[in-house]
Amino acid sequence: MVRRAASDSGGPRPTTIRDVAAHAGVSVATVSRILSGTYPGAPATRTRVLRAVRELDYVANANARGLAGASSRSVAIIVNSVVSPHYAHVAQGVQTQAAIEGKLCIVGTTGSDPERELATVQLMREEHAECVILVGNVVADEAYRARMAEYARALALAGSQLVLCGRPPLGPDVPALVVEYDNTGGAYAITSHLLSAGHQRILFLGRRDNYTTPESRVAGYRKALADHHVVHDPGLEVEGSMERHEGYRMISERLAAGPADFTAVFAGNDLIAAGARQALLEHGLRIPDDISVVGFDDLPPAADIGLTTVHVPHEELGRTAVRMALQRARDKSGTPERVMLGTHIVVRDSVRPVVRSGARS
Amino acid sequence: MVRRAASDSGGPRPTTIRDVAAHAGVSVATVSRILSGTYPGAPATRTRVLRAVRELDYVANANARGLAGASSRSVAIIVNSVVSPHYAHVAQGVQTQAAIEGKLCIVGTTGSDPERELATVQLMREEHAECVILVGNVVADEAYRARMAEYARALALAGSQLVLCGRPPLGPDVPALVVEYDNTGGAYAITSHLLSAGHQRILFLGRRDNYTTPESRVAGYRKALADHHVVHDPGLEVEGSMERHEGYRMISERLAAGPADFTAVFAGNDLIAAGARQALLEHGLRIPDDISVVGFDDLPPAADIGLTTVHVPHEELGRTAVRMALQRARDKSGTPERVMLGTHIVVRDSVRPVVRSGARS
Repeated sequence: MVRRAASDSGGPRPTTIRDVAAHAGVSVATVSRILSGTYPGAPATRTRVLRAVRELDYVANANARGLAGASSRSVAIIVNSVVSPHYAHVAQGVQTQAAIEGKLCIVGTTGSDPERELATVQLMREEHAECVILVGNVVADEAYRARMAEYARALALAGSQLVLCGRPPLGPDVPALVVEYDNTGGAYAITSHLLSAGHQRILFLGRRDNYTTPESRVAGYRKALADHHVVHDPGLEVEGSMERHEGYRMISERLAAGPADFTAVFAGNDLIAAGARQALLEHGLRIPDDISVVGFDDLPPAADIGLTTVHVPHEELGRTAVRMALQRARDKSGTPERVMLGTHIVVRDSVRPVVRSGARS
Repeated sequence: MVRRAASDSGGPRPTTIRDVAAHAGVSVATVSRILSGTYPGAPATRTRVLRAVRELDYVANANARGLAGASSRSVAIIVNSVVSPHYAHVAQGVQTQAAIEGKLCIVGTTGSDPERELATVQLMREEHAECVILVGNVVADEAYRARMAEYARALALAGSQLVLCGRPPLGPDVPALVVEYDNTGGAYAITSHLLSAGHQRILFLGRRDNYTTPESRVAGYRKALADHHVVHDPGLEVEGSMERHEGYRMISERLAAGPADFTAVFAGNDLIAAGARQALLEHGLRIPDDISVVGFDDLPPAADIGLTTVHVPHEELGRTAVRMALQRARDKSGTPERVMLGTHIVVRDSVRPVVRSGARS
């Protein structure tokens, strides 16, 4: 351990970046780049600098804060859970764009608890995150809008920026950016895909009134039925949340109550589709021979179970959110406040045309 | 908008928590609980308090920092990517335990970049995270050990705690806690499972020398072969990283070079197994009729593809990491510094006994 030089006053003089540079035999700029995380390569140099930092006890100094400047170089995303592939892939997009922009990425997780969301937004603001991105499905009631407006104003006052991702806009007086994707259009397209294959009894799994994401998907389902002049049977809309075990439950309960009164299943997302698929298989129903199944998201496990589904540009949502926020920080005038990304069908092997038994009169 | 009262000096007096409480018609304690994120319920009260906070511009005050106290109430986990189910489920365990302990959870993502890892550790330290948990597969070389030791000491000086999760320990002189799981034991068990079913030509997918996770899994594979007196053919160990597309690549290349010279596949993780499965199916090989396949992790998509695999207690790893760190903060003497969690086989439908053609002499 190298001792730090004593200052004239007798106490230890704080180690400076010059001391570290001299000790490591590199320039001050090199030490700065390495400690700020913007240094591209040269592991040997890095090792030497880190050793000097350790031997001189430099990192423990308050200087390090200003040097690393990390707290002004982060973008934050807040999600309910990183186990959901939907949130994880948006976060991955945030991470990718943050890296391109030379920023760190931090993810807050709330476990769907509004109090934890509030506290996490506060934490991110205290850390001077350049933007705070909130993702996903919500009940867009008055309390929600009030909370979001509060976040937006508090962040704006702190020089940060609220971005809502996959959530509805708050109105023109609230300083929030919005990145959406076309839920209703995607649901319309995949329902039309089933209708075009002759399906008329299409079970919708995962209706949840007032929640923005399932509500906008149900809306697309209903609109497609109407445009194809197929009678809308509310009994075909099954309530449940957007998880795998819920898909399993919804199909299991339906088939326990009686034989299948549907020829196709539109699962509110791919996780529901995977759970529904398992329940259908356990009841001896083959996919797509007996029942066609489609999902929404195009995330794991869609490819592994050959699921026809709606592709959502998750990573692009995260990347767009970061780009919009940082662009706005540079130039308020030229940045759009709201962007809508498209969705499209991905056809795999889970849909088959209906074979009608008997002639129609 | 309610104006704040002017102070005696003529300028605006900073809003206090008492002003907010009076304005909302609740107690100071209630405001404190709501803003600190520990309030259990009563949405109407929350809405009223948040409105008062907004109208009085209270959140923008510096007071809010001390009130919320968020910066001393977080635990941090740093991962390469949240898209990997392995990391996501450990992070989920951290989130769950953090919520139980009344702490926030923040996740740093590094994109496997050591410089970003360093900067993220610095950021977490500046934020006074109570512990920083680092997860996953690494090249445990001298530079890595030096970097980790540096993190551990810097965090300890800041009153925080480094926890390594699924990474090897650093030695007795480094103040880091370690939570591991039994990679080698799990790999030994699942290889034995294949050997017991008569498989002798077992392709291992995902060898990667010097990386701690695949190396310890290969070690279990080799030990099981040796204990069952099966000749170890190094040509059956295929190099690749732990991703789905790599599993697809490894099998595709192998089968392009010639017919299958193996009866079973041990994929280094479930993602590799899913990619390998797709390539096998595309080559007309059925699972398990023609080729048995096993994985490692027991994460999505294992259940959806009926994969026999090794269960890793991912969430328990994250929960244990938080528990150990917080317990150590309370009482240094009684906390273990290193914990190893067990792994076990989960049998599904991807293994079939070998049917030998012809009699043995």
